Amino acid sequence: MAGKLSVSPLAPASFPELPEIAGVEFSALAAGVRYAGRTDVMLARLAPGSAIAGVFTRSSTRSAPVLDCEAKLAAGAETDAGAAILVNSGNSNAFTGAAGEGSVAAICAAVSAASGIPTARVFTSSTGVIGERLPHERITQRLDELVAGLVPDGIETAARAIMTTDTYAKGSGAVVQSPAGEIRIAGIAKGSGMIAPDMATMLVYIFTDVAIAQPILQQALSSLTEQTFNAITVDGDTSTSDTLLLAATGKGAARIDDLNDASGRAFVEALHKVMLDLAHQVVKDGEGASKFLEIRVTGATDDADAKTIAMSIANSPLVKTAIAGEDPNWGRVVMAVGKSGATANRDRLSIRFGDILVAEKGWVAPSYTEEAGAAYMKQPELQMSVDLGLGNGAFTAWTCDLTHAYISINADYRS
Amino acid sequence: MAGKLSVSPLAPASFPELPEIAGVEFSALAAGVRYAGRTDVMLARLAPGSAIAGVFTRSSTRSAPVLDCEAKLAAGAETDAGAAILVNSGNSNAFTGAAGEGSVAAICAAVSAASGIPTARVFTSSTGVIGERLPHERITQRLDELVAGLVPDGIETAARAIMTTDTYAKGSGAVVQSPAGEIRIAGIAKGSGMIAPDMATMLVYIFTDVAIAQPILQQALSSLTEQTFNAITVDGDTSTSDTLLLAATGKGAARIDDLNDASGRAFVEALHKVMLDLAHQVVKDGEGASKFLEIRVTGATDDADAKTIAMSIANSPLVKTAIAGEDPNWGRVVMAVGKSGATANRDRLSIRFGDILVAEKGWVAPSYTEEAGAAYMKQPELQMSVDLGLGNGAFTAWTCDLTHAYISINADYRS
Repeated sequence: MAGKLSVSPLAPASFPELPEIAGVEFSALAAGVRYAGRTDVMLARLAPGSAIAGVFTRSSTRSAPVLDCEAKLAAGAETDAGAAILVNSGNSNAFTGAAGEGSVAAICAAVSAASGIPTARVFTSSTGVIGERLPHERITQRLDELVAGLVPDGIETAARAIMTTDTYAKGSGAVVQSPAGEIRIAGIAKGSGMIAPDMATMLVYIFTDVAIAQPILQQALSSLTEQTFNAITVDGDTSTSDTLLLAATGKGAARIDDLNDASGRAFVEALHKVMLDLAHQVVKDGEGASKFLEIRVTGATDDADAKTIAMSIANSPLVKTAIAGEDPNWGRVVMAVGKSGATANRDRLSIRFGDILVAEKGWVAPSYTEEAGAAYMKQPELQMSVDLGLGNGAFTAWTCDLTHAYISINADYRS
Repeated sequence: MAGKLSVSPLAPASFPELPEIAGVEFSALAAGVRYAGRTDVMLARLAPGSAIAGVFTRSSTRSAPVLDCEAKLAAGAETDAGAAILVNSGNSNAFTGAAGEGSVAAICAAVSAASGIPTARVFTSSTGVIGERLPHERITQRLDELVAGLVPDGIETAARAIMTTDTYAKGSGAVVQSPAGEIRIAGIAKGSGMIAPDMATMLVYIFTDVAIAQPILQQALSSLTEQTFNAITVDGDTSTSDTLLLAATGKGAARIDDLNDASGRAFVEALHKVMLDLAHQVVKDGEGASKFLEIRVTGATDDADAKTIAMSIANSPLVKTAIAGEDPNWGRVVMAVGKSGATANRDRLSIRFGDILVAEKGWVAPSYTEEAGAAYMKQPELQMSVDLGLGNGAFTAWTCDLTHAYISINADYRS
């Protein structure tokens, strides 16, 4: 469990200073969901008028809370009642059959009773062990306490409450000016294993004070997910509980009506920055990670092929163990390109580690030296660029290395 | 390198007794391709009239020897000239540009000069480091010696010559009676990392004494590959050099004209047994393997979905680390089913570990106890069965666990 793990060497020095978002309050406490004495439940209350957008795992075995969130967002209940987000760690309430749905209903009812927010506007997430009944009564009996504890500046504690094998709490924020007025964004995330592409993401909650219609908010979130949370991978495995919620309270200065006007672009740009920062923080806390790797693929036939190749490299155990060993083993990059199934031509391919040209024209570059490659690999943050020389398709992915610590964490920890 | 690795705990007690195949001779020696004093080149000579079938990696960055073999099989040169197979370990001659093609040509020319077999019937494979020039002169200058050393009973030495990170030599054979007469088959294989599905395989050479037309031989080989070498995975990575060659000398008693008559069925059954045995031996020598896992998927919508699910489980790092930790973590199996993209219904799914019913109807089975699951997981050879409850699609895959030793081997060894 988290207590036994040392903090990732790639962790930021400290949790960032995040802007308070008008219309959002946080509360957290230790409910003993799985472990005693660990802050493991967080509640966020959103002011009346808040719009909420979401992206979720596409797993066919997704958890009861995910199914409930999806149904509620699809139903599109009115936003003038306010909303609540309750998240527990320690138990994912996934693959728990009808009992799982009952736990979600019980928690939503208790949040509603304690806060006055209708259950149709209560969203929940659960993360932790799969297949064990969620002892939801440990949460529901503490709801009055949770509501009483709501404060505007509680986001860092909330970030800690949702951690499982995470070695540090993850937050990111932005305050930007736009023609429509100041825009504030603050977000938190958790995730360190079961992180994979082609799915929404781990658990991420982002808050902003802009006034914005829900369909436009959803559009911004969905389009940015592809380049951020869907572009990272730790181990190619995907949680049954991945949830990304974005809430806009409308209590700030700016109203966003069009994502393409100056204010809309300022909002999208700031949101992208926050989402990418949180996505990178998740990778940097990848289970056992000691290196952060950016993989840039260009020159592919199309963007889809570029993503296929980037993810084939990012998920290759042989590439990831070479990174762990600080071995400039570009042959494994060639292997991963070749196995991806995307269009590639051995003789047009070029590979760079950082600025170092490693391979081109179907072979090692004449200028490349093993010493230069080996020296480069010693850095904690690495970049590999692959140009296919075929077209204009491009994609950038991020991952971490595969180390002994990943094995230790996952052979011992019951997730 | 191999010398530093201890033998897999799943290794057979010894190399099997293999039948001699009339019309095949073997030779091997230490040419110092990469390491001094290691047997690293093998030559097999096939009698005039031999038919040869092949299956190769589909990697778009496949090696020069693979490209050469494919071209020669496609050209279909006559079989009355005999044939030769030369394999080296230590250097894969992959991603070596035009120089790589030159090395293949030089080796084929030297084999031809020393043996009298035309270059169109000389097939080569190379396995080892990617992207370094193959010092082919170390091989070509030893060819007279290799040819002089050809003996009918040299198959075990040949099996040792093709090892890289393998911890034991892999062989399998069969002698069966058929209406057409006795059928003899003997095969060898190498491979322990970069083993993945959806590609041909590692290096495998199988010899039989039946008389059979090449198209029928190819048909038998291709159809059996799907259920054997394409159903195993160690790490989901795929070599640029995977090669599977099957040679039939026609020097035995049996002539096979139809794979569906009694003799044809006897041949296919014996060949299937040899291919499956070699495939299992490759998995059991998976880098760092301590457990052998059979994954049976049934009740899927179709066979393709069943394979997708089986391979999603077999390639999941979280499932494989749980196996290494002897943790009956069936929740990770649920996760892997869910992420696969294949059709699944949480509430119709059932999971068994061996004969133990673990989960059904969307939750843990009432009869399941953690103690029973934990006791089962201590065995070296495990079986997980997943029934989707949807249709008649089925597929069985085999893999090994993911251990610290995999990381050690691949962070240190330059493959």
